Amino acid sequence: MRVRKKPWADDFINDHQEFIVLEPQQLQGKWQERFAKDQPLAVEIGTGKGQFITEMAKKYPNINFIGIELQTSVIAVALRKLVENPLPNVQLVLTDGADVNEIFATGEVDRIYLNFSDPWPKKRHAKRRLTSPQFLKGYQMVLNPTGDVEFKTDNRGLFEYSLGSFNNYGLVFDDVYLDLHRSEANEDNVETEYEQKFSAKGPIYKLVAHFKTEN
Amino acid sequence: MRVRKKPWADDFINDHQEFIVLEPQQLQGKWQERFAKDQPLAVEIGTGKGQFITEMAKKYPNINFIGIELQTSVIAVALRKLVENPLPNVQLVLTDGADVNEIFATGEVDRIYLNFSDPWPKKRHAKRRLTSPQFLKGYQMVLNPTGDVEFKTDNRGLFEYSLGSFNNYGLVFDDVYLDLHRSEANEDNVETEYEQKFSAKGPIYKLVAHFKTEN
Ligand SMILES: C[S@@+](CC[C@H](N)C(=O)[O-])C[C@H]1O[C@@H](n2cnc3c(N)ncnc32)[C@H](O)[C@@H]1O
Ligand SMILES: C[S@@+](CC[C@H](N)C(=O)[O-])C[C@H]1O[C@@H](n2cnc3c(N)ncnc32)[C@H](O)[C@@H]1O
Repeated sequence: MRVRKKPWADDFINDHQEFIVLEPQQLQGKWQERFAKDQPLAVEIGTGKGQFITEMAKKYPNINFIGIELQTSVIAVALRKLVENPLPNVQLVLTDGADVNEIFATGEVDRIYLNFSDPWPKKRHAKRRLTSPQFLKGYQMVLNPTGDVEFKTDNRGLFEYSLGSFNNYGLVFDDVYLDLHRSEANEDNVETEYEQKFSAKGPIYKLVAHFKTEN
Repeated sequence: MRVRKKPWADDFINDHQEFIVLEPQQLQGKWQERFAKDQPLAVEIGTGKGQFITEMAKKYPNINFIGIELQTSVIAVALRKLVENPLPNVQLVLTDGADVNEIFATGEVDRIYLNFSDPWPKKRHAKRRLTSPQFLKGYQMVLNPTGDVEFKTDNRGLFEYSLGSFNNYGLVFDDVYLDLHRSEANEDNVETEYEQKFSAKGPIYKLVAHFKTEN
Protein backbone atom coordinates (compact mmCIF):
# COMPACT_ATOMS: atom_id res chain seq x y z
CA MET A 1 0.00 0.00 0.00
CA ARG A 2 1.58 3.26 -1.13
CA VAL A 3 0.56 6.29 0.89
CA ARG A 4 1.74 9.83 1.03
CA LYS A 5 3.89 10.62 4.07
CA LYS A 6 1.65 11.92 6.80
CA PRO A 7 3.72 14.38 8.83
CA TRP A 8 1.11 14.43 11.59
CA ALA A 9 1.27 10.63 12.02
CA ASP A 10 4.22 10.36 14.43
CA ASP A 11 2.89 12.95 16.84
CA PHE A 12 -0.65 11.60 16.64
CA ILE A 13 0.57 8.09 17.45
CA ASN A 14 2.64 9.30 20.39
CA ASP A 15 -0.35 11.20 21.75
CA HIS A 16 -2.76 8.23 21.64
CA GLN A 17 -0.98 5.33 23.23
CA GLU A 18 -4.22 4.25 24.87
CA PHE A 19 -5.12 2.67 21.51
CA ILE A 20 -1.75 1.87 20.00
CA VAL A 21 1.15 -0.16 21.33
CA LEU A 22 4.68 0.75 20.29
CA GLU A 23 6.63 -1.78 22.36
CA PRO A 24 4.54 -4.93 21.97
CA GLN A 25 7.21 -7.34 23.25
CA GLN A 26 6.58 -6.01 26.74
CA LEU A 27 2.99 -7.25 26.64
CA GLN A 28 3.78 -10.85 25.62
CA GLY A 29 1.44 -13.11 27.61
CA LYS A 30 -0.34 -10.10 29.11
CA TRP A 31 -2.39 -8.67 26.25
CA GLN A 32 -5.68 -8.98 28.08
CA GLU A 33 -4.46 -6.16 30.35
CA ARG A 34 -4.88 -3.75 27.47
CA PHE A 35 -8.62 -4.47 27.14
CA ALA A 36 -11.71 -3.67 29.16
CA LYS A 37 -12.68 -7.33 29.31
CA ASP A 38 -10.84 -10.65 29.35
CA GLN A 39 -12.18 -12.46 26.26
CA PRO A 40 -11.01 -14.33 23.14
CA LEU A 41 -8.27 -12.61 21.17
CA ALA A 42 -8.25 -12.15 17.39
CA VAL A 43 -5.27 -10.61 15.60
CA GLU A 44 -5.26 -9.11 12.12
CA ILE A 45 -1.88 -8.82 10.44
CA GLY A 46 -1.57 -6.04 7.86
CA THR A 47 -4.62 -4.24 9.19
CA GLY A 48 -4.22 -1.24 6.87
CA LYS A 49 -6.54 1.65 7.64
CA GLY A 50 -8.52 -0.46 10.10
CA GLN A 51 -11.96 -0.71 8.52
CA PHE A 52 -12.23 -4.48 8.99
CA ILE A 53 -11.05 -4.55 12.57
CA THR A 54 -13.24 -1.69 13.75
CA GLU A 55 -16.33 -3.13 12.04
CA MET A 56 -15.58 -6.56 13.48
CA ALA A 57 -15.09 -5.08 16.94
CA LYS A 58 -18.52 -3.43 16.80
CA LYS A 59 -20.14 -6.61 15.50
CA TYR A 60 -18.41 -8.89 18.02
CA PRO A 61 -18.10 -7.00 21.32
CA ASN A 62 -17.18 -10.24 23.10
CA ILE A 63 -13.93 -10.62 21.19
CA ASN A 64 -10.80 -8.52 21.66
CA PHE A 65 -9.14 -7.42 18.43
CA ILE A 66 -5.55 -6.45 17.74
CA GLY A 67 -4.56 -4.87 14.45
CA ILE A 68 -0.90 -5.18 13.48
CA GLU A 69 0.43 -2.86 10.79
CA LEU A 70 3.92 -2.09 9.57
CA GLN A 71 3.47 1.39 8.14
CA THR A 72 3.24 4.41 10.39
CA SER A 73 1.28 6.53 7.95
CA VAL A 74 -1.27 3.74 7.40
CA ILE A 75 -1.85 2.72 11.00
CA ALA A 76 -2.25 6.40 11.86
CA VAL A 77 -5.43 6.43 9.79
CA ALA A 78 -6.75 3.39 11.68
CA LEU A 79 -5.83 5.12 14.93
CA ARG A 80 -7.72 8.25 13.95
CA LYS A 81 -10.85 6.16 13.41
CA LEU A 82 -10.44 4.76 16.89
CA VAL A 83 -9.83 8.14 18.51
CA GLU A 84 -12.96 9.50 16.87
CA ASN A 85 -15.04 6.41 17.75
CA PRO A 86 -13.44 4.70 20.74
CA LEU A 87 -13.91 0.93 21.07
CA PRO A 88 -13.00 -0.96 24.26
CA ASN A 89 -12.04 -4.12 22.34
CA VAL A 90 -9.55 -2.81 19.78
CA GLN A 91 -5.83 -2.23 20.09
CA LEU A 92 -3.40 -1.36 17.33
CA VAL A 93 0.24 -2.40 17.15
CA LEU A 94 2.87 -0.74 14.98
CA THR A 95 5.22 -3.60 14.16
CA ASP A 96 6.18 -6.32 11.68
CA GLY A 97 3.89 -9.35 11.62
CA ALA A 98 6.98 -11.50 11.13
CA ASP A 99 7.57 -11.08 14.86
CA VAL A 100 4.24 -12.45 16.16
CA ASN A 101 6.03 -15.05 18.22
CA GLU A 102 7.93 -12.34 20.12
CA ILE A 103 4.74 -10.36 20.67
CA PHE A 104 2.42 -13.12 21.86
CA ALA A 105 2.88 -16.05 24.22
CA THR A 106 2.23 -19.64 23.16
CA GLY A 107 -1.49 -20.14 22.68
CA GLU A 108 -2.36 -16.53 23.56
CA VAL A 109 -4.19 -15.91 20.26
CA ASP A 110 -7.51 -17.49 19.19
CA ARG A 111 -7.69 -16.38 15.61
CA ILE A 112 -5.43 -14.77 13.00
CA TYR A 113 -6.88 -12.73 10.15
CA LEU A 114 -4.94 -12.07 6.98
CA ASN A 115 -6.83 -9.77 4.64
CA PHE A 116 -5.61 -8.80 1.18
CA SER A 117 -2.01 -9.28 2.16
CA ASP A 118 0.60 -7.85 -0.18
CA PRO A 119 0.98 -10.43 -2.99
CA TRP A 120 4.73 -10.16 -3.59
CA PRO A 121 4.31 -11.78 -7.00
CA LYS A 122 7.99 -12.37 -7.73
CA LYS A 123 9.20 -15.81 -6.73
CA ARG A 124 12.30 -14.42 -5.05
CA HIS A 125 10.02 -12.40 -2.76
CA ALA A 126 7.90 -15.41 -1.76
CA LYS A 127 9.35 -15.33 1.76
CA ARG A 128 7.74 -11.95 2.37
CA ARG A 129 4.23 -13.28 1.76
CA LEU A 130 2.25 -13.47 4.99
CA THR A 131 1.21 -17.02 4.05
CA SER A 132 4.74 -18.38 3.54
CA PRO A 133 6.05 -21.19 5.78
CA GLN A 134 8.13 -18.94 8.03
CA PHE A 135 5.07 -16.82 8.85
CA LEU A 136 2.91 -19.92 9.32
CA LYS A 137 5.41 -21.16 11.86
CA GLY A 138 4.93 -17.96 13.85
CA TYR A 139 1.14 -18.26 13.72
CA GLN A 140 1.35 -21.87 14.88
CA MET A 141 3.42 -20.84 17.89
CA VAL A 142 1.01 -18.21 19.15
CA LEU A 143 -2.33 -19.80 18.22
CA ASN A 144 -4.37 -21.67 20.74
CA PRO A 145 -4.80 -25.36 19.71
CA THR A 146 -8.47 -24.68 18.93
CA GLY A 147 -7.60 -21.49 17.03
CA ASP A 148 -7.61 -20.89 13.29
CA VAL A 149 -6.41 -18.67 10.44
CA GLU A 150 -8.80 -16.81 8.15
CA PHE A 151 -7.30 -15.54 4.92
CA LYS A 152 -9.03 -13.44 2.24
CA THR A 153 -7.63 -12.07 -0.98
CA ASP A 154 -8.60 -11.03 -4.48
CA ASN A 155 -5.17 -11.98 -5.80
CA ARG A 156 -5.34 -15.24 -7.71
CA GLY A 157 -1.61 -15.90 -7.66
CA LEU A 158 -1.37 -15.31 -3.94
CA PHE A 159 -4.34 -17.55 -3.25
CA GLU A 160 -2.95 -20.37 -5.41
CA TYR A 161 0.35 -20.06 -3.57
CA SER A 162 -1.34 -19.97 -0.17
CA LEU A 163 -3.51 -23.05 -0.76
CA GLY A 164 -0.29 -24.93 -1.52
CA SER A 165 1.66 -23.34 1.32
CA PHE A 166 -1.02 -24.02 3.98
CA ASN A 167 -1.49 -27.57 2.71
CA ASN A 168 2.21 -28.36 2.54
CA TYR A 169 2.73 -26.96 6.04
CA GLY A 170 0.12 -29.39 7.31
CA LEU A 171 -2.76 -27.03 8.04
CA VAL A 172 -6.22 -28.57 7.89
CA PHE A 173 -8.74 -26.75 5.67
CA ASP A 174 -12.09 -25.93 7.28
CA ASP A 175 -13.58 -23.82 4.49
CA VAL A 176 -12.58 -22.76 1.01
CA TYR A 177 -14.47 -20.10 -0.97
CA LEU A 178 -13.55 -19.32 -4.55
CA ASP A 179 -16.13 -16.57 -4.86
CA LEU A 180 -16.93 -15.42 -1.36
CA HIS A 181 -19.39 -12.72 -2.36
CA ARG A 182 -21.49 -15.27 -4.20
CA SER A 183 -21.40 -17.85 -1.40
CA GLU A 184 -23.66 -18.47 1.57
CA ALA A 185 -20.87 -17.12 3.80
CA ASN A 186 -21.27 -13.64 2.32
CA GLU A 187 -24.05 -12.85 4.72
CA ASP A 188 -21.65 -12.73 7.67
CA ASN A 189 -18.78 -11.23 5.74
CA VAL A 190 -17.24 -7.97 6.97
CA GLU A 191 -15.53 -6.18 4.11
CA THR A 192 -12.12 -4.56 4.24
CA GLU A 193 -11.12 -1.43 2.35
CA TYR A 194 -9.36 -3.44 -0.33
CA GLU A 195 -12.27 -5.80 -0.64
CA GLN A 196 -14.66 -2.96 -1.38
CA LYS A 197 -12.29 -1.56 -3.96
CA PHE A 198 -11.45 -4.75 -5.82
CA SER A 199 -14.37 -7.11 -5.55
CA ALA A 200 -15.99 -5.75 -8.71
CA LYS A 201 -12.94 -6.82 -10.71
CA GLY A 202 -13.14 -10.52 -9.93
CA PRO A 203 -13.82 -13.08 -7.22
CA ILE A 204 -12.74 -12.76 -3.60
CA TYR A 205 -11.10 -15.95 -2.32
CA LYS A 206 -11.20 -17.12 1.28
CA LEU A 207 -9.55 -19.94 3.20
CA VAL A 208 -10.17 -20.95 6.82
CA ALA A 209 -7.75 -23.49 8.27
CA HIS A 210 -6.30 -24.73 11.54
CA PHE A 211 -3.04 -26.30 12.63
CA LYS A 212 -3.01 -29.98 13.43
CA THR A 213 -2.40 -30.52 17.12
CA GLU A 214 0.68 -32.63 17.85
CA ASN A 215 0.05 -36.20 18.88
CA MET B 1 -23.83 -36.75 -18.91
CA ARG B 2 -27.22 -37.48 -20.46
CA VAL B 3 -27.09 -39.20 -23.82
CA ARG B 4 -29.65 -40.81 -26.04
CA LYS B 5 -29.63 -44.61 -25.88
CA LYS B 6 -27.39 -45.89 -28.62
CA PRO B 7 -28.77 -49.27 -29.74
CA TRP B 8 -25.58 -50.02 -31.69
CA ALA B 9 -23.43 -49.56 -28.58
CA ASP B 10 -23.70 -53.05 -27.06
CA ASP B 11 -22.88 -54.86 -30.27
CA PHE B 12 -20.11 -52.45 -31.15
CA ILE B 13 -18.50 -52.95 -27.75
CA ASN B 14 -18.72 -56.74 -28.00
CA ASP B 15 -17.12 -56.63 -31.43
CA HIS B 16 -14.12 -54.51 -30.38
CA GLN B 17 -12.74 -56.08 -27.28
CA GLU B 18 -9.22 -55.40 -28.50
CA PHE B 19 -9.74 -51.83 -27.22
CA ILE B 20 -12.26 -52.27 -24.42
CA VAL B 21 -12.18 -54.46 -21.33
CA LEU B 22 -15.45 -55.76 -19.89
CA GLU B 23 -14.08 -57.90 -17.05
CA PRO B 24 -11.33 -55.71 -15.67
CA GLN B 25 -10.91 -57.62 -12.37
CA GLN B 26 -9.23 -60.39 -14.32
CA LEU B 27 -6.43 -58.07 -15.35
CA GLN B 28 -5.55 -56.85 -11.85
CA GLY B 29 -1.75 -56.66 -11.66
CA LYS B 30 -1.43 -57.59 -15.34
CA TRP B 31 -2.56 -54.49 -17.20
CA GLN B 32 0.69 -54.12 -19.11
CA GLU B 33 -0.30 -57.27 -21.06
CA ARG B 34 -3.00 -55.25 -22.79
CA PHE B 35 -0.50 -52.82 -24.29
CA ALA B 36 2.13 -52.95 -27.00
CA LYS B 37 4.81 -51.67 -24.64
CA ASP B 38 5.48 -51.94 -20.90
CA GLN B 39 5.50 -48.30 -19.74
CA PRO B 40 4.00 -45.98 -17.09
CA LEU B 41 0.25 -46.30 -16.62
CA ALA B 42 -2.18 -43.37 -16.41
CA VAL B 43 -5.88 -43.89 -15.66
CA GLU B 44 -8.69 -41.45 -16.35
CA ILE B 45 -11.89 -42.01 -14.39
CA GLY B 46 -15.05 -40.76 -16.08
CA THR B 47 -13.40 -40.57 -19.46
CA GLY B 48 -16.60 -39.64 -21.31
CA LYS B 49 -16.27 -39.64 -25.08
CA GLY B 50 -12.52 -40.06 -24.89
CA GLN B 51 -11.18 -36.85 -26.39
CA PHE B 52 -8.70 -36.21 -23.57
CA ILE B 53 -7.34 -39.72 -23.39
CA THR B 54 -6.86 -40.14 -27.15
CA GLU B 55 -5.16 -36.74 -27.46
CA MET B 56 -2.93 -37.52 -24.49
CA ALA B 57 -2.05 -40.92 -25.95
CA LYS B 58 -0.91 -39.30 -29.19
CA LYS B 59 1.07 -36.63 -27.35
CA TYR B 60 2.67 -39.08 -24.91
CA PRO B 61 3.35 -42.36 -26.76
CA ASN B 62 5.56 -43.53 -23.89
CA ILE B 63 2.66 -43.68 -21.45
CA ASN B 64 -0.12 -46.26 -21.43
CA PHE B 65 -3.60 -44.80 -20.88
CA ILE B 66 -6.73 -46.45 -19.53
CA GLY B 67 -10.08 -44.69 -19.74
CA ILE B 68 -12.72 -45.83 -17.25
CA GLU B 69 -16.33 -44.92 -17.95
CA LEU B 70 -19.59 -46.04 -16.40
CA GLN B 71 -22.02 -45.47 -19.26
CA THR B 72 -22.21 -47.85 -22.19
CA SER B 73 -23.56 -45.32 -24.64
CA VAL B 74 -20.81 -42.82 -23.74
CA ILE B 75 -17.83 -45.16 -23.79
CA ALA B 76 -19.07 -46.52 -27.15
CA VAL B 77 -18.31 -43.10 -28.64
CA ALA B 78 -14.79 -43.21 -27.24
CA LEU B 79 -14.42 -46.72 -28.59
CA ARG B 80 -15.51 -45.63 -32.05
CA LYS B 81 -12.76 -42.99 -32.06
CA LEU B 82 -10.25 -45.70 -31.23
CA VAL B 83 -11.53 -48.13 -33.85
CA GLU B 84 -11.27 -45.41 -36.48
CA ASN B 85 -7.83 -44.28 -35.31
CA PRO B 86 -6.17 -47.14 -33.47
CA LEU B 87 -3.66 -46.28 -30.75
CA PRO B 88 -1.37 -48.91 -29.19
CA ASN B 89 -1.34 -47.16 -25.81
CA VAL B 90 -5.06 -46.74 -25.03
CA GLN B 91 -7.48 -49.17 -23.45
CA LEU B 92 -11.03 -48.47 -22.35
CA VAL B 93 -12.81 -50.06 -19.40
CA LEU B 94 -16.57 -50.14 -18.91
CA THR B 95 -16.95 -50.09 -15.14
CA ASP B 96 -17.49 -47.99 -12.01
CA GLY B 97 -14.48 -45.98 -10.87
CA ALA B 98 -15.50 -46.77 -7.30
CA ASP B 99 -13.95 -50.18 -7.85
CA VAL B 100 -10.42 -49.10 -8.86
CA ASN B 101 -8.91 -51.13 -6.04
CA GLU B 102 -10.45 -54.32 -7.45
CA ILE B 103 -9.25 -53.49 -10.94
CA PHE B 104 -5.65 -52.55 -10.22
CA ALA B 105 -3.01 -54.02 -7.96
CA THR B 106 -1.27 -51.98 -5.25
CA GLY B 107 1.02 -49.44 -6.92
CA GLU B 108 0.09 -50.52 -10.45
CA VAL B 109 -1.01 -46.99 -11.49
CA ASP B 110 1.28 -43.98 -11.93
CA ARG B 111 -1.27 -41.23 -12.39
CA ILE B 112 -5.01 -40.76 -12.00
CA TYR B 113 -6.85 -38.12 -14.04
CA LEU B 114 -10.23 -36.78 -12.99
CA ASN B 115 -11.66 -34.40 -15.56
CA PHE B 116 -14.91 -32.51 -15.12
CA SER B 117 -16.31 -35.15 -12.82
CA ASP B 118 -20.03 -35.02 -12.14
CA PRO B 119 -20.47 -32.36 -9.43
CA TRP B 120 -23.27 -33.98 -7.40
CA PRO B 121 -24.09 -30.61 -5.84
CA LYS B 122 -26.44 -31.89 -3.14
CA LYS B 123 -24.76 -32.57 0.17
CA ARG B 124 -26.45 -35.92 0.56
CA HIS B 125 -24.83 -37.02 -2.72
CA ALA B 126 -21.33 -35.97 -1.65
CA LYS B 127 -20.24 -39.61 -1.41
CA ARG B 128 -20.72 -40.01 -5.14
CA ARG B 129 -18.21 -37.29 -5.98
CA LEU B 130 -15.05 -38.78 -7.46
CA THR B 131 -13.03 -36.63 -5.04
CA SER B 132 -14.74 -37.83 -1.85
CA PRO B 133 -12.74 -39.70 0.82
CA GLN B 134 -13.95 -43.17 -0.15
CA PHE B 135 -12.75 -42.65 -3.73
CA LEU B 136 -9.47 -41.13 -2.53
CA LYS B 137 -8.87 -44.26 -0.49
CA GLY B 138 -9.17 -46.34 -3.65
CA TYR B 139 -6.77 -44.09 -5.55
CA GLN B 140 -4.29 -44.31 -2.70
CA MET B 141 -4.36 -48.11 -2.80
CA VAL B 142 -3.59 -48.41 -6.51
CA LEU B 143 -1.22 -45.47 -6.97
CA ASN B 144 2.50 -45.97 -7.01
CA PRO B 145 4.17 -44.05 -4.11
CA THR B 146 5.61 -41.58 -6.63
CA GLY B 147 2.25 -41.26 -8.42
CA ASP B 148 -0.20 -38.40 -8.34
CA VAL B 149 -3.77 -37.26 -9.01
CA GLU B 150 -4.62 -34.54 -11.54
CA PHE B 151 -8.07 -33.04 -11.21
CA LYS B 152 -9.69 -30.43 -13.49
CA THR B 153 -13.14 -28.91 -13.30
CA ASP B 154 -15.10 -25.81 -14.17
CA ASN B 155 -17.44 -26.41 -11.24
CA ARG B 156 -16.67 -24.00 -8.40
CA GLY B 157 -18.58 -25.92 -5.75
CA LEU B 158 -16.91 -29.20 -6.66
CA PHE B 159 -13.48 -27.60 -6.65
CA GLU B 160 -14.04 -25.96 -3.26
CA TYR B 161 -15.19 -29.30 -1.90
CA SER B 162 -12.27 -31.15 -3.46
CA LEU B 163 -9.60 -28.78 -2.12
CA GLY B 164 -10.99 -29.51 1.34
CA SER B 165 -11.41 -33.22 0.74
CA PHE B 166 -7.89 -33.73 -0.65
CA ASN B 167 -6.40 -31.63 2.14
CA ASN B 168 -8.35 -33.32 4.92
CA TYR B 169 -7.42 -36.74 3.56
CA GLY B 170 -3.76 -35.79 3.83
CA LEU B 171 -2.86 -35.35 0.17
CA VAL B 172 0.02 -32.99 -0.53
CA PHE B 173 -0.67 -30.26 -3.09
CA ASP B 174 1.85 -29.94 -5.91
CA ASP B 175 0.04 -27.35 -8.05
CA VAL B 176 -3.14 -25.33 -7.80
CA TYR B 177 -4.54 -23.33 -10.71
CA LEU B 178 -7.59 -21.13 -10.27
CA ASP B 179 -7.68 -20.13 -13.93
CA LEU B 180 -5.80 -22.78 -15.84
CA HIS B 181 -6.32 -21.25 -19.26
CA ARG B 182 -4.69 -18.03 -18.12
CA SER B 183 -1.75 -19.73 -16.41
CA GLU B 184 1.68 -20.75 -17.66
CA ALA B 185 0.49 -24.39 -17.49
CA ASN B 186 -1.99 -23.78 -20.30
CA GLU B 187 0.70 -24.38 -22.90
CA ASP B 188 0.82 -28.10 -22.08
CA ASN B 189 -2.87 -28.46 -21.36
CA VAL B 190 -4.89 -31.04 -23.30
CA GLU B 191 -8.56 -30.08 -23.34
CA THR B 192 -11.47 -32.42 -22.71
CA GLU B 193 -14.86 -32.18 -24.39
CA TYR B 194 -16.40 -30.52 -21.36
CA GLU B 195 -13.50 -28.12 -21.05
CA GLN B 196 -13.99 -26.88 -24.61
CA LYS B 197 -17.69 -26.43 -24.00
CA PHE B 198 -17.52 -24.65 -20.67
CA SER B 199 -14.30 -22.71 -20.46
CA ALA B 200 -15.85 -19.61 -21.97
CA LYS B 201 -18.29 -19.41 -19.05
CA GLY B 202 -15.71 -19.08 -16.30
CA PRO B 203 -12.34 -20.28 -15.06
CA ILE B 204 -11.11 -23.87 -15.26
CA TYR B 205 -9.66 -25.04 -11.95
CA LYS B 206 -6.90 -27.61 -11.61
CA LEU B 207 -5.28 -29.40 -8.67
CA VAL B 208 -2.29 -31.76 -8.77
CA ALA B 209 -1.57 -33.65 -5.56
CA HIS B 210 0.09 -36.79 -4.23
CA PHE B 211 -0.45 -39.07 -1.28
CA LYS B 212 1.98 -38.88 1.57
CA THR B 213 4.03 -42.06 1.83
CA GLU B 214 3.69 -43.80 5.17
CA ASN B 215 6.62 -43.52 7.51
C1 LIG C 1 -2.83 -4.55 0.58
S1 LIG C 1 -2.93 -3.87 2.16
C2 LIG C 1 -4.46 -4.50 2.83
C3 LIG C 1 -4.96 -3.73 4.00
C4 LIG C 1 -6.25 -4.27 4.67
N1 LIG C 1 -6.00 -5.58 5.30
C5 LIG C 1 -7.38 -4.37 3.69
O1 LIG C 1 -7.78 -5.50 3.35
O2 LIG C 1 -7.94 -3.32 3.27
C6 LIG C 1 -1.69 -4.78 3.05
C7 LIG C 1 -1.24 -4.11 4.32
O3 LIG C 1 -0.40 -5.02 5.03
C8 LIG C 1 0.68 -4.29 5.58
N2 LIG C 1 1.78 -5.24 5.79
C9 LIG C 1 2.50 -5.85 4.82
N3 LIG C 1 3.42 -6.66 5.36
C10 LIG C 1 3.24 -6.59 6.71
C11 LIG C 1 3.92 -7.19 7.81
N4 LIG C 1 4.93 -8.05 7.62
N5 LIG C 1 3.50 -6.88 9.05
C12 LIG C 1 2.49 -6.01 9.23
N6 LIG C 1 1.84 -5.41 8.23
C13 LIG C 1 2.21 -5.70 6.98
C14 LIG C 1 0.96 -3.22 4.56
O4 LIG C 1 1.66 -2.14 5.12
C15 LIG C 1 -0.45 -2.85 4.10
O5 LIG C 1 -1.00 -1.82 4.88
C1 LIG D 1 -19.27 -34.55 -16.88
S1 LIG D 1 -18.68 -35.94 -17.74
C2 LIG D 1 -17.02 -35.49 -18.19
C3 LIG D 1 -16.47 -36.32 -19.28
C4 LIG D 1 -15.00 -36.04 -19.68
N1 LIG D 1 -14.08 -36.36 -18.58
C5 LIG D 1 -14.80 -34.60 -20.09
O1 LIG D 1 -14.13 -33.86 -19.35
O2 LIG D 1 -15.26 -34.20 -21.16
C6 LIG D 1 -18.45 -37.09 -16.41
C7 LIG D 1 -18.35 -38.51 -16.90
O3 LIG D 1 -17.98 -39.35 -15.80
C8 LIG D 1 -18.71 -40.55 -15.85
N2 LIG D 1 -18.76 -41.07 -14.48
C9 LIG D 1 -19.43 -40.58 -13.44
N3 LIG D 1 -19.25 -41.33 -12.35
C10 LIG D 1 -18.41 -42.33 -12.70
C11 LIG D 1 -17.88 -43.45 -12.01
N4 LIG D 1 -18.15 -43.64 -10.72
N5 LIG D 1 -17.07 -44.29 -12.69
C12 LIG D 1 -16.81 -44.08 -14.01
N6 LIG D 1 -17.30 -43.05 -14.71
C13 LIG D 1 -18.11 -42.19 -14.07
C14 LIG D 1 -20.06 -40.12 -16.41
O4 LIG D 1 -20.74 -41.21 -16.96
C15 LIG D 1 -19.65 -39.08 -17.44
O5 LIG D 1 -19.43 -39.64 -18.70
